[in-house]
Order: sequence, then C-alpha cells, then structure tokens
Amino acid sequence: MNVSTAEQQNIREQIQTLIQHWSAAIRDKDIEAIMGYYDPEIVAYDAIIQLQFKGVEAYRNHWEFCLGMCPGPMIFEQSQLVVHGDQQFAFAHWLNSCGGADEKGEMKSSWMRASAGFRRTAEGWKAVHEHFSAPFDMESGKALFDLKP
Amino acid sequence: MNVSTAEQQNIREQIQTLIQHWSAAIRDKDIEAIMGYYDPEIVAYDAIIQLQFKGVEAYRNHWEFCLGMCPGPMIFEQSQLVVHGDQQFAFAHWLNSCGGADEKGEMKSSWMRASAGFRRTAEGWKAVHEHFSAPFDMESGKALFDLKP
Repeated sequence: MNVSTAEQQNIREQIQTLIQHWSAAIRDKDIEAIMGYYDPEIVAYDAIIQLQFKGVEAYRNHWEFCLGMCPGPMIFEQSQLVVHGDQQFAFAHWLNSCGGADEKGEMKSSWMRASAGFRRTAEGWKAVHEHFSAPFDMESGKALFDLKP
Repeated sequence: MNVSTAEQQNIREQIQTLIQHWSAAIRDKDIEAIMGYYDPEIVAYDAIIQLQFKGVEAYRNHWEFCLGMCPGPMIFEQSQLVVHGDQQFAFAHWLNSCGGADEKGEMKSSWMRASAGFRRTAEGWKAVHEHFSAPFDMESGKALFDLKP
C-alpha cells in the first residue's frame, strides 16, 4: 500500500526536523546528541581520511576527532534539502555549508554535498547511511572548496 | 502498513539488478541505457568538477563528457552493496571500483564511494539521486585514490 501525499509530507517534515536538531548538536559540539541521530549499524562515507566508517563506535571516534579540530564556533547549515520518504525508509540530500574560525578568528566556510538514508525504529527515525564529500578537480586531484551553489 | 520482509528482500533484489544493468551500460558506454536508469528530476553529486548536476539533461551532458575521457575498456564494479527499500522509495550505498586503461594500456583503478536514491514510477524504479566521491587528505587537500576497502 502506498502512503498518502499527506503522510509523505509528514515524513519529509520529520526528517527535516531531525536534520535541523542534529545540525544544532554539531554546532554545540554535543557528542551525545550527535550520536543519538545514528542507527547502531550506520555506514558512513565521510569527506576525509577513510573510505568508510562502519558502526556507531567507529563513527563516534571519527566525530570526536573532527570536533577536536574545531575548537571555536562552527558553521553547519543546510541548503536545497530534498527528502523522499515512505513508512519505513527515507533518504535526503542537500548542500551543506561547513566552516569555522581560522587562526585570526575569521569565519571561513565551504560547500559540501550530503546524502543520508534513514530507517524508522522504535526510537524514531535513525540514520543508517551518511555520505559527505567535496568534488575534486581532475587536473590537480585537489578537493574544490570554492564552489558555490 | 509496513511491507513484509519478503517484499523488502524482493525490492533489494530489484535495486541490485538495476545497478548491475546500469553498470554494464557504463562499461559498454551505452549512453541511452545509462540515462534510462535516471528519473528526469535526478539531482546528482558527482565526484568531479561541480557541486551538483540538476535534471537529466545536465547530467547527460556530464556523462557524455565522462565517457569521452575513457576511450578504452573500463572497470566499473560494485562491492559491499547495501539496499534499504519500501514500496515507493529505496536507497543504496556501495564502494565502486572505477578505472580504465592508462597510456600504456595498463588497467588502473581506484575505489570510490557511491550512494543512490530511487523512486518507483510507471516505468519501474528510477534513480532520483546519486552521490559519487573520493575522500580527501586533510593536509594536502588531495583526493585519496589509493584507499582499499
């Protein structure tokens, strides 16, 4: 049975709110609230270092490393968020403005791409998959941090 | 109403077959078969050049550019594919071995990460979202092409 248009809209709003709360937790560097967003079986493709992080323990270690690199205020905001969802599963994609203060205290940010997949559990929607990245330049092999949406 | 475990398994097999046929089309450089996999409203985050490609026309142009760069035989294979799916929507993620022949004719490949979102249409499952990337090294800012799963 297909879910109704109204129910789909409801699911979209639930996922949007979930991502907003998680983003606030990231800006607050609240590791417990950040990790509460993920399913224990999360498979994450982050923008840096490794191909993947499998399971919530491995990803928690990576998040702690990432938060440790940003001692000051952070920018972490969504743009062009699209959500598709059904009763049990949903996925979303968006452009994410990521940044923080440089050595002089000036805020610097760049645009990344984000995708996420969710499943509905007894504790609500949980992210089972996440993918963050920057595209790279084919000549230099370098990540492109100056692209604008 | 939640779909049954048997129906979920059925959806997983449908998506797996879809990705296999699309991969064969890529190796065959069959642009019509490649593009038949996508929904007209595809939003694609490819590994190179731009933040995103919106709509099937923009993405077709990008695919033609990409195929033009690989005149010889191609490697395009999935590993560690995971699919989550419901009646109307499904998403998948996997590691993708991508490569081709270098100037000496030797096959070279590297591992990328891929995520995709699908919706069921009158013409079957269609990809509405795709995300390909390589992680980058934080010191050099360079994409990491030597990582192994």
